[in-house]
Amino acid sequence: MQKYSFLDDYSEGCHPTILEALASTNLQQQTAYGDDEYSEQGRSAIRKHLGSPDVAIHFVSGGTLANIIIIASALRPHEAVIAASIGHIVLRETGAVEASGHKIITLPSADGKLTPADIETAVANNAHYPHMAKPRMVYISNATEAGTVYTKAEVVALSATCKANNLLLLLDGARLGVALSSPLSDLKLRDVVEHTDIFWIGGTKAGTLLGEAIVIPNKILATEFSFHIKQRGGLLAKGRLLGIQFKALFDGELFFTLTQYANTTAQRLSEAFIAAGHTLDAPTESNLIFPVIPNTVIEILQRDFEFYTWRKIDDQSSVIRIATSWATDETQIDRFIKTLNSASG
Amino acid sequence: MQKYSFLDDYSEGCHPTILEALASTNLQQQTAYGDDEYSEQGRSAIRKHLGSPDVAIHFVSGGTLANIIIIASALRPHEAVIAASIGHIVLRETGAVEASGHKIITLPSADGKLTPADIETAVANNAHYPHMAKPRMVYISNATEAGTVYTKAEVVALSATCKANNLLLLLDGARLGVALSSPLSDLKLRDVVEHTDIFWIGGTKAGTLLGEAIVIPNKILATEFSFHIKQRGGLLAKGRLLGIQFKALFDGELFFTLTQYANTTAQRLSEAFIAAGHTLDAPTESNLIFPVIPNTVIEILQRDFEFYTWRKIDDQSSVIRIATSWATDETQIDRFIKTLNSASG
Amino acid sequence: MQKYSFLDDYSEGCHPTILEALASTNLQQQTAYGDDEYSEQGRSAIRKHLGSPDVAIHFVSGGTLANIIIIASALRPHEAVIAASIGHIVLRETGAVEASGHKIITLPSADGKLTPADIETAVANNAHYPHMAKPRMVYISNATEAGTVYTKAEVVALSATCKANNLLLLLDGARLGVALSSPLSDLKLRDVVEHTDIFWIGGTKAGTLLGEAIVIPNKILATEFSFHIKQRGGLLAKGRLLGIQFKALFDGELFFTLTQYANTTAQRLSEAFIAAGHTLDAPTESNLIFPVIPNTVIEILQRDFEFYTWRKIDDQSSVIRIATSWATDETQIDRFIKTLNSASG
Amino acid sequence: MQKYSFLDDYSEGCHPTILEALASTNLQQQTAYGDDEYSEQGRSAIRKHLGSPDVAIHFVSGGTLANIIIIASALRPHEAVIAASIGHIVLRETGAVEASGHKIITLPSADGKLTPADIETAVANNAHYPHMAKPRMVYISNATEAGTVYTKAEVVALSATCKANNLLLLLDGARLGVALSSPLSDLKLRDVVEHTDIFWIGGTKAGTLLGEAIVIPNKILATEFSFHIKQRGGLLAKGRLLGIQFKALFDGELFFTLTQYANTTAQRLSEAFIAAGHTLDAPTESNLIFPVIPNTVIEILQRDFEFYTWRKIDDQSSVIRIATSWATDETQIDRFIKTLNSASG
Repeated sequence: MQKYSFLDDYSEGCHPTILEALASTNLQQQTAYGDDEYSEQGRSAIRKHLGSPDVAIHFVSGGTLANIIIIASALRPHEAVIAASIGHIVLRETGAVEASGHKIITLPSADGKLTPADIETAVANNAHYPHMAKPRMVYISNATEAGTVYTKAEVVALSATCKANNLLLLLDGARLGVALSSPLSDLKLRDVVEHTDIFWIGGTKAGTLLGEAIVIPNKILATEFSFHIKQRGGLLAKGRLLGIQFKALFDGELFFTLTQYANTTAQRLSEAFIAAGHTLDAPTESNLIFPVIPNTVIEILQRDFEFYTWRKIDDQSSVIRIATSWATDETQIDRFIKTLNSASG
Repeated sequence: MQKYSFLDDYSEGCHPTILEALASTNLQQQTAYGDDEYSEQGRSAIRKHLGSPDVAIHFVSGGTLANIIIIASALRPHEAVIAASIGHIVLRETGAVEASGHKIITLPSADGKLTPADIETAVANNAHYPHMAKPRMVYISNATEAGTVYTKAEVVALSATCKANNLLLLLDGARLGVALSSPLSDLKLRDVVEHTDIFWIGGTKAGTLLGEAIVIPNKILATEFSFHIKQRGGLLAKGRLLGIQFKALFDGELFFTLTQYANTTAQRLSEAFIAAGHTLDAPTESNLIFPVIPNTVIEILQRDFEFYTWRKIDDQSSVIRIATSWATDETQIDRFIKTLNSASG
Repeated sequence: MQKYSFLDDYSEGCHPTILEALASTNLQQQTAYGDDEYSEQGRSAIRKHLGSPDVAIHFVSGGTLANIIIIASALRPHEAVIAASIGHIVLRETGAVEASGHKIITLPSADGKLTPADIETAVANNAHYPHMAKPRMVYISNATEAGTVYTKAEVVALSATCKANNLLLLLDGARLGVALSSPLSDLKLRDVVEHTDIFWIGGTKAGTLLGEAIVIPNKILATEFSFHIKQRGGLLAKGRLLGIQFKALFDGELFFTLTQYANTTAQRLSEAFIAAGHTLDAPTESNLIFPVIPNTVIEILQRDFEFYTWRKIDDQSSVIRIATSWATDETQIDRFIKTLNSASG
Repeated sequence: MQKYSFLDDYSEGCHPTILEALASTNLQQQTAYGDDEYSEQGRSAIRKHLGSPDVAIHFVSGGTLANIIIIASALRPHEAVIAASIGHIVLRETGAVEASGHKIITLPSADGKLTPADIETAVANNAHYPHMAKPRMVYISNATEAGTVYTKAEVVALSATCKANNLLLLLDGARLGVALSSPLSDLKLRDVVEHTDIFWIGGTKAGTLLGEAIVIPNKILATEFSFHIKQRGGLLAKGRLLGIQFKALFDGELFFTLTQYANTTAQRLSEAFIAAGHTLDAPTESNLIFPVIPNTVIEILQRDFEFYTWRKIDDQSSVIRIATSWATDETQIDRFIKTLNSASG
């Protein structure tokens, strides 16, 4: 029998509603390259949630591609992007930003978040013109790679700092759903529209087979954007595939229902670890949990479950990482907690 | 009532067999990033058809992305790629190859094909070292953008010329299925493995929702290839989506059945034009038809059908382009021929 | 005894006046990176000739570098440059423009010049958005690679076509001196400022050791230009080296005196070929001469002189290329003509 | 009266010997693009000092250009370079390495040097393939940006670590002369040939007007290198300009005489600071001095001299940076010391 995986939030296919939407529209002829009816309906559905009836929206197949297209289209060759040292563009995209010609100025950040002070520091330390690349964009992710989330006040403050320093603000929303659904978050999609220049809403980790929706509040950045999508290989012939899925997520509240489910499940697990007498290496703010447990417990859990051993604490214990998702099976949660309690007893 | 479209071969979703495969595997947990069981099975299925049990195969979401990844990974910065003037990388990819840093040396070609003599010319005209970019790769597509196909002898000759000139041979197979299924073609998948360094098999135009399979016979080019996929944004988190589809196409003969159907349908239409007293601007070698018809006939056909008016011949007549596919509806073919006959009468 | 070379216009060092200027300022301390007094004086001297007291001017070490910096700084990633098929950026810069990420759209041109109709054609043929790179800049060189020159009316017409099509106009002036000094030219430096967005004045072929002066009439293109110079490796620590030389060329009329000398010398040779009964493959418009002579005459001339055999006409005769310069030795001209007459007799 | 500058080591022109060499060869005709006799003689002269009769050597005009050409030619697109956080390519080249497509993995280093342990750390932290750019080259500079120098044992150890990790070793020698001439250094040019894959010898800071000599012990990296020089805009038409200068520096011992002079002068100043009762922020290993002095003394020195105030220590004192060079005027050193003593008294 296969182990149940808590490794990540993309181990399953798509939510059944999405599969049905694909099936029911499958043989209808549609215009190619994202100019189909479903993509238009998907964009409209998202725009309603954004409260922004004419904001530019483009669908692409993945997050790294979204970041490449956004950054390469927005910056002139001498301009750099500021990011946290554990940012996805820094550590998990094989130098894709640099491959498009741009320097990333990194700032140490244990929780993956950036502050206005961080940005001021980066600007001050990169002012030896023209011998230094010019800071022009700030990259944040929400939720961050560490599972932490931004409050509205934090995003507003970052936005103000960016404006004061002539910096564009990009929000990587691979996990925007769980961030917005977090019990710690008062941020709304409308706030993201208002306070960033460009951002994207992750579908892959929120129930689609693939696909991210790039939203461009800054009208200058929206100019001729589709050229960049095409040039970087991001324009699917059957763009309907992305439109149908986002329509399914955003026609109603499915996006939020699914991401809230992931968070709730994570909270259940998080509380179970505490109840079993363990501590957390970081508060559980979204769908990632970082408990500190004895290696003996890890071994027992690993018999039936997959997860990452994240970091060694000492010879006896380690931090592990558990990820939940829209697809997490509640009976497996029950089974996991039972095993945990038994092993920790 | 909507017009029936003959605009292209990607107006529908995917073949029902593929949809079923997606549905039946949807909630099974799988390893991410193409390391799942289905992707492995998809690769195995293709390898059987290739007669090459250990050739490297990678799936990516689209054709432009495939070309970017292949060319950028294979060439050093000073190396150029030779292509026909109407090649897809020349005219339809928004300068993607150049965006990755490489010059394309173009050769005039009305039918989209390259000959050994073309390649010798390109090499001779670009030999002023080091002031000229160095020709290092030849790009061909089969079927070409003009719908023409290569015979085995032609591919073998090109391959020999490439080897003699230290050039890599890349075959863009966005429409490789209809090329191999063409009544004019004696080329087999095994020949492509033997005589090219790298090529890709198009899924999008052969019945998948998306996806192309990159095959790398040249072991040096296969080295560290997955880095390049990831760096260019081509590594899907749910790589299973591509693997499942290619498994469905290649477990049996579905790929060939579907592309042969597209060709057969095109032949029927092609013959109907001739029977109705019209000529063809080019022979119908795959799933693209280029008849020359009076503008008055065009107008009548346009009432019920969509297709491209490709090129003006004179004030009375034009070349049109009709594309068929695996999904072309036979009853619409009947209706089209009836309308054509009536209008041409 | 060494043969005398008519191969190119950069076989010697620099004009003695420039060497003296270098010597007389050599040990004076100056600010680095082009912020020295001599560079400022060089820019002022050029600006007087341009009739443009505040136009941005930057010195760089070579022509390919000038073109890279200009094109890479002016274009967004999806934008392309239009050029004649024999343009220097097309055939003699090892794909440098493509290496900076941009496509060159080429137009056939035997004499190296572009016309408004050429540009309209390029724009019309590259309008399939967003699948094609977007034409955004026109590159011309004056004198061209074929030695031909533009009249003022031609430049004005090109400029108008560019403006009408939202295209930037770049003039590569590697041989701008001989172009402006050509008996066929009524173009003045002030016209170039008025009718182009950016251009450069070649020093290397006009008497300096190295160095080209980039002039940027378009204020938007001038923004943050020095970042691009630095990023592409073009910012010399001892920028004075370039400033001193351009000051020497432009404080008075030396630039024009030297380039006129090159033209006059070329005219003398050109007339000598005609007087000796030969024809010219192209009119002698600047410092390049393309006579058609018997191979037997070529052989005799090659005993004492170096020049390029450019193109075969038939088994008996070929086009040769002779280049003169500011440094061409008049006694060698006499000797060459004498040899020519004797061989042609 | 102008202040005397200790700001950098490139405030003057070139050593008089070099100026004479330029003058005496000025009007002799030479082959272009570095294929002239003087460049060949310059390469031979350097090779004698290197003890390596057939090593590839190329001259380029500046250090940033040298780094761009080297790194872009040596790495495949997914490969990264490891460097100290204060490395010139990290902080002083406007993102030039990233503009060529490559990530720099930085390591904190107060003195600008890297250790084998640093490299092991970088390799270990960037091993999540293929999601991370692959470390493939190590960049060091000698002397470093902090004026520190490597011993032979240190270079040998770095080289061994590189080999063990399949990393190329690049040594930026903008200040290689003062490094080799340092009283703390036992490193010889021959060692650099033996233990690096590619390095460059700075001319600009050692008495030339401009120019750096790239030396390529690794034969694979030397392949087709001139294409890359040309493509990046580094191939001077009058390549003789660089060849003549390096011939002058390396025909005898001029290079070492000049750089030793810079070091000796720095030592004199360094000792003067200590004798006057001040401390050094870092030992004086080459031609850069970092004394800690009261702000009141700084003010007095600034009346007659220019130098950088580098870093604030507290409200009363700061670190300053003094640079000496081959051209430093000994009478100004006397005057500086006199002023220092008087101000410190």
